[in-house]
Amino acid sequence: MNDSLVIAGKSYDSRLLVGTGKYRDFAQTREAIEASGARIVTVAIRRTNIGQNADEPNLLDVLPPERFTILPNTAGCYTADDAVRTLRLARELLDGHALVKLEVLGDPETLFPNMPETLKAAQTLVKDGFDVMVYCSDDPIQARMLEDIGCVAVMPLASLIGSGMGILNPWNLQLIIEQSRVPVLVDAGVGTASDAAIAMELGCDGVLMNTAIAKAQDPVRMAAAMKKGVEAGREAFLAGRMPKKTYAASPSSPTTGLIGR
Amino acid sequence: MNDSLVIAGKSYDSRLLVGTGKYRDFAQTREAIEASGARIVTVAIRRTNIGQNADEPNLLDVLPPERFTILPNTAGCYTADDAVRTLRLARELLDGHALVKLEVLGDPETLFPNMPETLKAAQTLVKDGFDVMVYCSDDPIQARMLEDIGCVAVMPLASLIGSGMGILNPWNLQLIIEQSRVPVLVDAGVGTASDAAIAMELGCDGVLMNTAIAKAQDPVRMAAAMKKGVEAGREAFLAGRMPKKTYAASPSSPTTGLIGR
Amino acid sequence: MNDSLVIAGKSYDSRLLVGTGKYRDFAQTREAIEASGARIVTVAIRRTNIGQNADEPNLLDVLPPERFTILPNTAGCYTADDAVRTLRLARELLDGHALVKLEVLGDPETLFPNMPETLKAAQTLVKDGFDVMVYCSDDPIQARMLEDIGCVAVMPLASLIGSGMGILNPWNLQLIIEQSRVPVLVDAGVGTASDAAIAMELGCDGVLMNTAIAKAQDPVRMAAAMKKGVEAGREAFLAGRMPKKTYAASPSSPTTGLIGR
Amino acid sequence: MNDSLVIAGKSYDSRLLVGTGKYRDFAQTREAIEASGARIVTVAIRRTNIGQNADEPNLLDVLPPERFTILPNTAGCYTADDAVRTLRLARELLDGHALVKLEVLGDPETLFPNMPETLKAAQTLVKDGFDVMVYCSDDPIQARMLEDIGCVAVMPLASLIGSGMGILNPWNLQLIIEQSRVPVLVDAGVGTASDAAIAMELGCDGVLMNTAIAKAQDPVRMAAAMKKGVEAGREAFLAGRMPKKTYAASPSSPTTGLIGR
Repeated sequence: MNDSLVIAGKSYDSRLLVGTGKYRDFAQTREAIEASGARIVTVAIRRTNIGQNADEPNLLDVLPPERFTILPNTAGCYTADDAVRTLRLARELLDGHALVKLEVLGDPETLFPNMPETLKAAQTLVKDGFDVMVYCSDDPIQARMLEDIGCVAVMPLASLIGSGMGILNPWNLQLIIEQSRVPVLVDAGVGTASDAAIAMELGCDGVLMNTAIAKAQDPVRMAAAMKKGVEAGREAFLAGRMPKKTYAASPSSPTTGLIGR
Repeated sequence: MNDSLVIAGKSYDSRLLVGTGKYRDFAQTREAIEASGARIVTVAIRRTNIGQNADEPNLLDVLPPERFTILPNTAGCYTADDAVRTLRLARELLDGHALVKLEVLGDPETLFPNMPETLKAAQTLVKDGFDVMVYCSDDPIQARMLEDIGCVAVMPLASLIGSGMGILNPWNLQLIIEQSRVPVLVDAGVGTASDAAIAMELGCDGVLMNTAIAKAQDPVRMAAAMKKGVEAGREAFLAGRMPKKTYAASPSSPTTGLIGR
Repeated sequence: MNDSLVIAGKSYDSRLLVGTGKYRDFAQTREAIEASGARIVTVAIRRTNIGQNADEPNLLDVLPPERFTILPNTAGCYTADDAVRTLRLARELLDGHALVKLEVLGDPETLFPNMPETLKAAQTLVKDGFDVMVYCSDDPIQARMLEDIGCVAVMPLASLIGSGMGILNPWNLQLIIEQSRVPVLVDAGVGTASDAAIAMELGCDGVLMNTAIAKAQDPVRMAAAMKKGVEAGREAFLAGRMPKKTYAASPSSPTTGLIGR
Repeated sequence: MNDSLVIAGKSYDSRLLVGTGKYRDFAQTREAIEASGARIVTVAIRRTNIGQNADEPNLLDVLPPERFTILPNTAGCYTADDAVRTLRLARELLDGHALVKLEVLGDPETLFPNMPETLKAAQTLVKDGFDVMVYCSDDPIQARMLEDIGCVAVMPLASLIGSGMGILNPWNLQLIIEQSRVPVLVDAGVGTASDAAIAMELGCDGVLMNTAIAKAQDPVRMAAAMKKGVEAGREAFLAGRMPKKTYAASPSSPTTGLIGR
């Protein structure tokens, strides 16, 4: 069965997207990403050398763009202007590459998105020809606004970046998934494999993560676990779970139709 | 890496155990079990023909004992005597096969275990030379008693049989896992792939399920999802998850050491 | 001990705020509000006659403004303009009354707030001299923006209006409470008394509800239950709860410092 | 409305039962118990002087039996024999007092009940003329056995004694409540006022607690909070909560009939 993730018209045979930060070195980054099976790898342009600094090791040497789709992101940007500037730089460094991940943060402590600045940046970037995947809160109304602006994917947080708290509000996520005509990916908050499975069982199209792999005790093994977690959740979603019942003998299924918890 | 499940001295290369009830027919049973990768397949002696009725289709024809370890169980028994009698019959039918799953139910509505009768039956069966895997409540004290009697695995329910409610009390399960010197397997209550992953992330040695596969809309696909869910959870457990934090910037990790949710 | 709720410089001896919709008639509205002990009563200007229609029963006849602070709200408004217009009308009807509750909804199905329009309306209303209490999402960044604009209280939803689902994301609520210099009240989502208690234990300054009382089987008794639920939660918050421990004998308290669940 | 708790034929006008351990001194014990409004006060015979030691302060001097029903308990007993002996001693000290609380613990670390010894002790005590309220696990089958033996109340733990973790498995509690013909009281695990409210909303007849009050930062204020929490939960249960809905506009109420979370 063909069950590809399609973003901006291109197919990917993995629904797990990964970041490149917080690893011990580029060798571990490479090994973990291989184990994850990811095809889309996101890179914080502000923090990672993809050619800006000619004298330093270049991430693209270990993640060759012919094998991986590099997804430049704006981690560390707190205004729309900063984010737009950063992605224009990335486009130059990556020879006109249009697929980007926008994130505009609200403060350096929680890393919660600044939604007004995110909406503003998204408008500019879409007009400017970018294919914008966008990190956002789990607000279904603003997710729809981002979709209406023309973003190619909406990426609500499950919980705060780097927290590993899992999916704190599956209900809001569900509202976003039900209404959305573009792919919905959980971005931020996944801590372990079951979190990724739950996101997929809710009907997400994909999951993006970084810390959960990079800061596991054994990042390469966790990357393999996450690959299976995403696939398990996706297949369970497609298979259609049994109804929940308070007892097996119960004639009715009081929780049928509820999301997966 | 070798990471086998060892029960009663024998190794199995899958940590997912499956039942054989509630399928459309033996062909679907077989196909789903193949997709699950299970090596141990449990059979309700009271309900399934494994040779008692010479004229009817025999499950062993589709699940040949040379490929699968058949685990006779006492589903439908409400007293220790009934359960003991049923497993002695199974031993005859299966040529002296010692590995069995004991379950003594408390009532036909909830299918919750009757623990006093379970303890009594376990004592008889262990003395009688059986290798007893035992369905039980999530009571850590009685789980220890079953282990002290000599059961080869304790199998607490996650939620009621056939309910698909997932792991209702991970804390009790955690107490059982921490203290136990024999394998701990979740038996009953798993509804979807993430439930299986959570059980394994808590440190369970395996998961047994039936309804979650047989009553999914697509049982064969769900069997494949469960295989990956169990493996994802096991690998995440071995990899060692990142600490949970309320914020990434938070110096302390208030929930470190807590179980996986 | 004096433990009043202070909003816009005025003290109130109840932390429970109630709505006036969905009751059988004005008599039941009055009786339930009396039982709730509320001092601030919110009124949907679009739906309730407080004098616009001289020929119809007037809610103010049963809720005399000398006993209750009437809080006009903009339920049913989907744009900033509509909300501003509605509250200007209310000010005329209520002789210059400045305290209002702003809500700008995102769609008629979920009743989730439209945050961009909410921010816009808040700016206009604050400039226009209103004391604005504001219904909002549980986004801590936008809650801070509303506070910076000069709103006198922020009122995040606990779950969708009329859903009775309780507090879906206590973590976001906690972020808002920790940062806020104005009162934080949970608005929307409370379904039963324990939900109100949990909100107060998290550190909220108050709770606003309508459906949970009006649509209980016995609204007057539920109003009394809610009064006690809010007080119980407030007193427990002030008393300082015991630390959570996995066991009593456990030397450390792994969950200390976590919010109340 | 008369809504008394009736145990063994006697009415009590409070549904909150409290312990006497872990306070700073007898004065604080007295003050907190007064604030709690409790009528039944449980005393660990092994640890508290109610007359065994003539030279030491006697708890009964601050809790006069004409105002409070003293409920002797067997905290610290690990066998049926020990528990029976302890309660016979209590009966002598308290002039033939028949109402007692049986608890037989499984180990000193978790303080989880030892159910086989509990069942054995209950049989002896009931035959011996005691009115036995019994601490037990949340196993609905064994709860029914205790009721069939003739216990006057079953008292399942919500979580481990002294843990303050709240109600870990409301589903098992619900099964016990639905089937029981004697009062069901939550004993152990309540940490804050909302926990007590939730127990009552589930349909419990009462709640017993000690650590949550004694180890709050301000025990007397927490006692008052718990009084209101229990009353709020009871009144909400009697009032009949609104149905839960995923949206207000949702025609169906998918979670109606589920227990209160």
